[in-house]
Amino acid sequence: MSGTLFGIGLGPGDPELMTLKAHRLISSAKVIAYPAPDSGESFARSIASASIPSDAREIPIIVPMRVDRFPAQEIYDQASEEIAEVLATGQNVVTLCEGDPFFYGSFMYLFERLSDRFEIEIVPGVTSLTACAAQLQRPLTSRNDVLTVIPGPLPDSEIRKKIEEAQAVAIMKVGRHLTRLKALLSDMKLLEKAGYVERASLNEQKVHRLIDLEVETAPYFSMILIYKGDEAWTLPPSYSS
Amino acid sequence: MSGTLFGIGLGPGDPELMTLKAHRLISSAKVIAYPAPDSGESFARSIASASIPSDAREIPIIVPMRVDRFPAQEIYDQASEEIAEVLATGQNVVTLCEGDPFFYGSFMYLFERLSDRFEIEIVPGVTSLTACAAQLQRPLTSRNDVLTVIPGPLPDSEIRKKIEEAQAVAIMKVGRHLTRLKALLSDMKLLEKAGYVERASLNEQKVHRLIDLEVETAPYFSMILIYKGDEAWTLPPSYSS
Repeated sequence: MSGTLFGIGLGPGDPELMTLKAHRLISSAKVIAYPAPDSGESFARSIASASIPSDAREIPIIVPMRVDRFPAQEIYDQASEEIAEVLATGQNVVTLCEGDPFFYGSFMYLFERLSDRFEIEIVPGVTSLTACAAQLQRPLTSRNDVLTVIPGPLPDSEIRKKIEEAQAVAIMKVGRHLTRLKALLSDMKLLEKAGYVERASLNEQKVHRLIDLEVETAPYFSMILIYKGDEAWTLPPSYSS
Repeated sequence: MSGTLFGIGLGPGDPELMTLKAHRLISSAKVIAYPAPDSGESFARSIASASIPSDAREIPIIVPMRVDRFPAQEIYDQASEEIAEVLATGQNVVTLCEGDPFFYGSFMYLFERLSDRFEIEIVPGVTSLTACAAQLQRPLTSRNDVLTVIPGPLPDSEIRKKIEEAQAVAIMKVGRHLTRLKALLSDMKLLEKAGYVERASLNEQKVHRLIDLEVETAPYFSMILIYKGDEAWTLPPSYSS
């Protein structure tokens, strides 16, 4: 009997936004894998750290931070084999995932390498999508709104078209695209309907109306939310973050 | 000092998919509000029931089940005033919300009535979006995919256009629109890429490839997920649910 690979969503960053199930599985884990940068702390591990048993075996998956963030295939080939060896002994492996494993998550690189050989269970987590809406104090979607989630690196023309056709819009991975996206939304007369959140739910979180934001770049974990639907929701005049 | 109104996301149904924060706030609540049908059990309350203190005051918000599910304004006017009276005494009120309060949630009806008078804190929850992807065993989105979330009641022409332009699609609130949606997806040659999940994470959950589904109507809490992006993800040949 092989072990099960768990892909565990940890939520947006506040450890209290982990699910009870994530907490239970991590607290009793014997082997824990997680993505980690080549220098500095693993964000996923930092969210779960208080729940990780001190005697658990840890398998960091070292992914060099690159601009495009699409990791080299060999890193995941190697990590998958290390995890497969553990699973083959009958031991479960718990993989820590920021947000939700299947929502723009790097867990898919393990999933696509191991799902034909081993049982995999996904434990969904709170995504940054709703965590950012919560911090902006404005509903994300209601009634029969269409919601479109757009990665910030896409070209302006494509983003413009998607925004035109949706009632609610989330632009993810804003990062170094901030100035360009702000100019686009200004041109579309949507700046006042746009909210900005970085590092939602963490101590270093920032929440602003996009129109008030005076920086030129943003961290990778940042999002713009726009609401164009029928409801009269506006953003609060100021945020106390 | 007025009390705070908490809008608490409970996740898709499995009580273990509540967050630690939701569990903490509910367990120590003195006053708990939740939507309830005019006959039968409140789904939100049923998710949280094991965490509700036996001496908590409960405020059920009775919303008659109607086809369009857009509740009468008077019901929320009245519930808001009952909650406002409690908040005005300095007492907090915890409101239980299926999924996430700001993701197609009825909590917005309280929010828009009370947010100018009282402090409101939203505790985000796991949405059915990622809970369904987890059960389908297929990632929802990756890399630079555009994800579009479409309410099933929208007309075919609109749904078709949105599907054509996205890499990942979720059709929510499938319900009585199942047969029509299935015909549309068949016409678009997408039936084999579509997965169906109802009542995700509950005991009575059903998970199928849409092509295998032999019923003609679905419950309100049902979803179709389609993946059209570059990844070669297919659905498993069968589900053991």
